[in-house]
Amino acid sequence: MKDNYEDRIRCPRLMQRVTSPQEAASWIRDGMTVGMSGFTRAGDAKALPAALAERARHEPLRITLLTGASLGNDTDKLLTEAGALARRMPFQADPVLRAAINRGEVMYIDQHLSETVETLRSRQMKPVDVAIIEAVAITESGAIIPTTSVGNSASFAILADKVIVEINLSQTPDLEGLHDIWIPKARPTREALPVVSVNQRVGVPYIDIPFEKIVAVVITDQVDSTSSIQPPDSETAAIAGHLVNFFENEIEAGRLTRQLLPLQAGIGTIANAVMAGFANSPFEHLTMYSEVLQDSTFDLFDAGKLDFASGSSITLSPSKSKQVFSDFGRYKDRLVLRPQEVSNHPEAIRRLGIIAINTALEADIYGNVNSTHVLGTHMMNGIGGSGDFARNAYLSVFATKSIAKGGKVSSIVPMVTHVDHTEHDVDIIVTELGLADLRGLAPRERADVIIANCVAAPYQDMLREYVAEAKQRGGHTPHVLEKAFDWHTRYRESGSMLKAG
Amino acid sequence: MKDNYEDRIRCPRLMQRVTSPQEAASWIRDGMTVGMSGFTRAGDAKALPAALAERARHEPLRITLLTGASLGNDTDKLLTEAGALARRMPFQADPVLRAAINRGEVMYIDQHLSETVETLRSRQMKPVDVAIIEAVAITESGAIIPTTSVGNSASFAILADKVIVEINLSQTPDLEGLHDIWIPKARPTREALPVVSVNQRVGVPYIDIPFEKIVAVVITDQVDSTSSIQPPDSETAAIAGHLVNFFENEIEAGRLTRQLLPLQAGIGTIANAVMAGFANSPFEHLTMYSEVLQDSTFDLFDAGKLDFASGSSITLSPSKSKQVFSDFGRYKDRLVLRPQEVSNHPEAIRRLGIIAINTALEADIYGNVNSTHVLGTHMMNGIGGSGDFARNAYLSVFATKSIAKGGKVSSIVPMVTHVDHTEHDVDIIVTELGLADLRGLAPRERADVIIANCVAAPYQDMLREYVAEAKQRGGHTPHVLEKAFDWHTRYRESGSMLKAG
Repeated sequence: MKDNYEDRIRCPRLMQRVTSPQEAASWIRDGMTVGMSGFTRAGDAKALPAALAERARHEPLRITLLTGASLGNDTDKLLTEAGALARRMPFQADPVLRAAINRGEVMYIDQHLSETVETLRSRQMKPVDVAIIEAVAITESGAIIPTTSVGNSASFAILADKVIVEINLSQTPDLEGLHDIWIPKARPTREALPVVSVNQRVGVPYIDIPFEKIVAVVITDQVDSTSSIQPPDSETAAIAGHLVNFFENEIEAGRLTRQLLPLQAGIGTIANAVMAGFANSPFEHLTMYSEVLQDSTFDLFDAGKLDFASGSSITLSPSKSKQVFSDFGRYKDRLVLRPQEVSNHPEAIRRLGIIAINTALEADIYGNVNSTHVLGTHMMNGIGGSGDFARNAYLSVFATKSIAKGGKVSSIVPMVTHVDHTEHDVDIIVTELGLADLRGLAPRERADVIIANCVAAPYQDMLREYVAEAKQRGGHTPHVLEKAFDWHTRYRESGSMLKAG
Repeated sequence: MKDNYEDRIRCPRLMQRVTSPQEAASWIRDGMTVGMSGFTRAGDAKALPAALAERARHEPLRITLLTGASLGNDTDKLLTEAGALARRMPFQADPVLRAAINRGEVMYIDQHLSETVETLRSRQMKPVDVAIIEAVAITESGAIIPTTSVGNSASFAILADKVIVEINLSQTPDLEGLHDIWIPKARPTREALPVVSVNQRVGVPYIDIPFEKIVAVVITDQVDSTSSIQPPDSETAAIAGHLVNFFENEIEAGRLTRQLLPLQAGIGTIANAVMAGFANSPFEHLTMYSEVLQDSTFDLFDAGKLDFASGSSITLSPSKSKQVFSDFGRYKDRLVLRPQEVSNHPEAIRRLGIIAINTALEADIYGNVNSTHVLGTHMMNGIGGSGDFARNAYLSVFATKSIAKGGKVSSIVPMVTHVDHTEHDVDIIVTELGLADLRGLAPRERADVIIANCVAAPYQDMLREYVAEAKQRGGHTPHVLEKAFDWHTRYRESGSMLKAG
């Protein structure tokens, strides 16, 4: 396969920099900060991290690793097992890394995905020493054409002293032209983000760096890891149904048209299922302004429901991946991939009026949402872009199944054990049982609506009991502090939030 | 005094609509939603609310009251005592209303100050029936010249069917020209907010409505309530000192210039004192892009430190008020007042790179901040604009004295009882004891830095003990859930967070 990469490297002087992953990895030294491409398993560097992990097994090599979001190809696992990760940001979704984070071995900085490169650009964080970027091609001048994600790749490459490019022959050359790279200027002379419509292109379709910065080029043909989301089930279908009903009512009330407003869907099974549910809806000419484009995006294209989708990555199931990328021309003119600081930018989200649909790990009776911490302590993945969207959205929806662990866990609790999204940023909570519209409600009213609509039977009475006792103590947001986490403590000790007997 | 208001009402057809507050108040009926001017006690309607409260004592009259932020002249108190408030948003700071909210009698919706008119404009909230706006003058066409605040006045007047204007003769006519009214278009065709520098004017200096909408004009000369903030003390001076040192180091590291970046300071004693501390600093040509402009703004002008200040209101102490408004021309060309959705707009805050300085009620060892709820249940004032700024700022600072209630309360606790600002949105915590720079740190590291720098002696050991026990349970963010609120429970039961004996 490595015979025919010549047409992918159009800058002749870079041909002599083609080297092995091992050789390229030697640019990375102990203590460095490395910025890698990769967002929701898409477009991640593949050969370099594996070579790095291999080296770290034999010599001291601990790095700070920055990416767009989660990686595929077990990269986080391999690097963790090799002891190569000192610090990691801004997102991860790997079980082995997660365990190391929760043991306190890897320092993990869980960030709003739009903010990482802002802190880099303003030098409030240690600079990126080496950027490693997967590409479909390098242009005549040395500019990089990314693959299935943009993420933070552009700023990593622009801000780093040295760049290593992985040319991935398995990524279709048709991806060229898909990307739109726009980078804000340094303050205090920054202009407005020019995006005023979902399908608008405001930048250039490549990462513009001088070829001299590219110190090594590696050739791979390893494919992106595919999505691990589950197909829709009866409960996710019920959630989608409640949301479709809700939006139909909004249209009837004259607040929205059948086109709705641009949609964002968080990564994962539930958000994907909700979007898929829109295929059988009365809505039309939908658009997406989201971060990861999942199977449902292409289902909606195929159903004729979706006009355009803007994102920062494309992550698909194996079968959908095959279908989409073997016939990419069919979709390409209805897609754009942007840097994650643009896909997730507060400016764009507020201006366009996004309908944001994200997943809650748990929510409480007053509308606070925990997206990240199991029992308030153990990191699951990270906040990702959910905060970028929920805070600035036209409408902020959080979806969850009402119970987990076979009913031993209620997703709606008296008080969340960790707050990622405050009561101020949550408009709708929806479970398979129903939808709570919290707009314009005070906390005590929210509690009534959430308990009545979203909570599984055994927990409904328990929550009503809690609220009644809390109200005796008074307050805008009544609580019985010493009992607020009783459910979690009971689960930790007995394996169930339900009382015994 | 009511003899010489003719030059304030330049639209002749409105002269015949001049009436008594009682008469004007009759436009407001039971169950209505009323939008009033007023932001941090500045520029609030005065005669109308008093007449409304009087009426509510004799007849059924319960309204939903929307304002910019807090009101002066005991308006919230009078309306609460008269039973006239069914719902109140988005901010308040009145002890009588606060108590009614905490008894669950008034439904209070505590909102990010930039968001209220967005939800009105998109009709996600009941529309404003009547707007009551204080003005220095009405133009020939019926446009309103606001007084010492803009707040939400412009959108209330534009969106309401009927508008009542209070011409306040005590407000200097020099205020005309101070305001810059820019209102975003409805989605999905919204343009970018054009503000790219602090001193830029992007709108018009009046609220542009047709005169026909003005159903009544009332004349008053009641003055704005003055600020109730305390003067700087040794502890607030120490907080200011730590921040000045911090910024000096940032300049040395090349991350900032002596001009820093535009400053925002929350309302209140601590933020005002911090800003005042900049008068004796090496910084120069400072600018502010803030919401309320307090005494310190004018102290910094007088000290030659401040070039320009953008806000949504001016709220001063009695002596400063006298000085500033008796010689307003001296400051006017260095000031602009904007609608609060512009002063607090995520677009502007992110773009300009604001340094946001706000006050914490309590913070926890992992950097979460409670700005609103005493013991997690009882509302103090509200989140105000702190979330608008903290989330999108270049740098987000939260200041608090390390202890309260004579040492019986620690402002740094194991876990905050209510989260207004998540760990993701807090860069710096500063008390009189020192400053914790949380940038780029994982939760366990943040705990060490906060405990070492910001916590009063007796509580330092208690927090270290808590963290040690929590770490035994593991997790990215270690906690002992069943003990997380022990300090608050102890305070509630014994009057002190300290253990007895």
